[in-house]
Amino acid sequence: MVIDASAIVPVVKIQEGLVEATAEDAVAAEEPLEIRLLFGPENNRQIQNVAVTMRTPGHDADLATGFLFTEGIIKAHSDVAEAGHSFIACAENRENTIQVNLQSHIIPNLRNADRNFYTTSSCGVCGKSSINAIRTVSAYDESITDDVVLQSALLYQLPDLLRQHQQVFESTGGLHASALFSLQGELLAVREDVGRHNALDKLIGISLRNGWLPLHNKVLLLSGRISFELVQKAAMAGIKIVAAIGAPSSLAIQLAQEFNITLVGFLRHQRFNIYTAAHRISTV
Amino acid sequence: MVIDASAIVPVVKIQEGLVEATAEDAVAAEEPLEIRLLFGPENNRQIQNVAVTMRTPGHDADLATGFLFTEGIIKAHSDVAEAGHSFIACAENRENTIQVNLQSHIIPNLRNADRNFYTTSSCGVCGKSSINAIRTVSAYDESITDDVVLQSALLYQLPDLLRQHQQVFESTGGLHASALFSLQGELLAVREDVGRHNALDKLIGISLRNGWLPLHNKVLLLSGRISFELVQKAAMAGIKIVAAIGAPSSLAIQLAQEFNITLVGFLRHQRFNIYTAAHRISTV
Repeated sequence: MVIDASAIVPVVKIQEGLVEATAEDAVAAEEPLEIRLLFGPENNRQIQNVAVTMRTPGHDADLATGFLFTEGIIKAHSDVAEAGHSFIACAENRENTIQVNLQSHIIPNLRNADRNFYTTSSCGVCGKSSINAIRTVSAYDESITDDVVLQSALLYQLPDLLRQHQQVFESTGGLHASALFSLQGELLAVREDVGRHNALDKLIGISLRNGWLPLHNKVLLLSGRISFELVQKAAMAGIKIVAAIGAPSSLAIQLAQEFNITLVGFLRHQRFNIYTAAHRISTV
Repeated sequence: MVIDASAIVPVVKIQEGLVEATAEDAVAAEEPLEIRLLFGPENNRQIQNVAVTMRTPGHDADLATGFLFTEGIIKAHSDVAEAGHSFIACAENRENTIQVNLQSHIIPNLRNADRNFYTTSSCGVCGKSSINAIRTVSAYDESITDDVVLQSALLYQLPDLLRQHQQVFESTGGLHASALFSLQGELLAVREDVGRHNALDKLIGISLRNGWLPLHNKVLLLSGRISFELVQKAAMAGIKIVAAIGAPSSLAIQLAQEFNITLVGFLRHQRFNIYTAAHRISTV
């Protein structure tokens, strides 16, 4: 069973029509993770499977708590009594099942675990209903004003800092990354995963554990494109500046606009685009 | 409401610390799609919401039927009587809800719609149980031998052919693509989406509709990385050669190995790697 973030596999390398080498190569590890929740009063504990996600092994407890928080199932890290693999009886699959034990007085909001999370309208779904659904479960008031400002000169440097710390990507070319920086450009944490939503959940999980939330005065850097789901998770964690190497989607921009989040895309080659809340980026 | 594959948004462009322009730019459209299933005998039709996926609008009926097929919920396109937006009463959200009406004698396998699809073991999940779960719902026998051979010289040309047809990516930089080629390098179809699984479901949906399945003698080209989920969908459609511009994950390789699928990664700059079933690629 794979428990590392990368695995070694045999590979035939072809260059210009010729077999260049038959060799071994590192690839990004991908394994399913089942997230289980144990909750309820001491005399009536219940267990529930909340989700199965395909992830890169590592930081599984952070992934689970980050997921539960960004999906609105738990409200704070203090809701969690313990999280780990060790509760699982069967040794063989232990590494792929993580159990989060909540404090006995905490009632998880399991309605949010429903895969029809975005269906709030009786007549179907739309971008507007999806955005409203986030608002109802968000722990932070997005209307609070802030004086967060980031220098554009500093923004340019973040992708290089991220790349220096993307260890598994370097060896496999196969991972998404999420990184958290201070407004002074200090790297606080970076997480990698085959699933970009998992990389962000792991990052928010460690932030929860370290008591960093809300992440109002931090910058989130994403290695790829910006989807609705990623902005949703950022909004849940109170992040005010999201920057990405790649392009944003239309609904990611709409959600950022509604939550007053500064959205930066195409951050590369000394250039970037600002899509929303441009006042937080200073060019002087 | 966005119903095109891209949307125009205002953007502030910054280059070397200076505001280069305040302009409008095209971004990839992302909107939720609710997939509804209508099934059962004429005198007792039932309706069920099967999934909500964040997708780029367009080819929604193909996305829905492709999804139902690759998840093992339906077995053939002939199971479908009709698929469309027009069944939805409420005009406002009609474009984001697709209803698939099955033939009255067809019983969908809705157990496969469960999000715990990969959980087949009593003690948790693992890569092996995930692979076995695919085997039980696959419509094609993966042990059938074939004489499919693809010339490496032809493989090199596929990314350029794909790029020429990636219209929305060109304008937005924000979409994943899946393309289907004949063994002679003829492009049969290409689909783009903010979600790579959606791009592939759309491609398999049109293949179902055109009666192309099983896709034994076709080549699937993916614009990005190769995850387990993408190989799963390819396996469900009977595809024997999967090539990608990006890197594969460990579990994608294991699944390809088990299903005797040829997996090619890092296809760029006149080079590529073969991870499994190398016998189908000819370098002479």
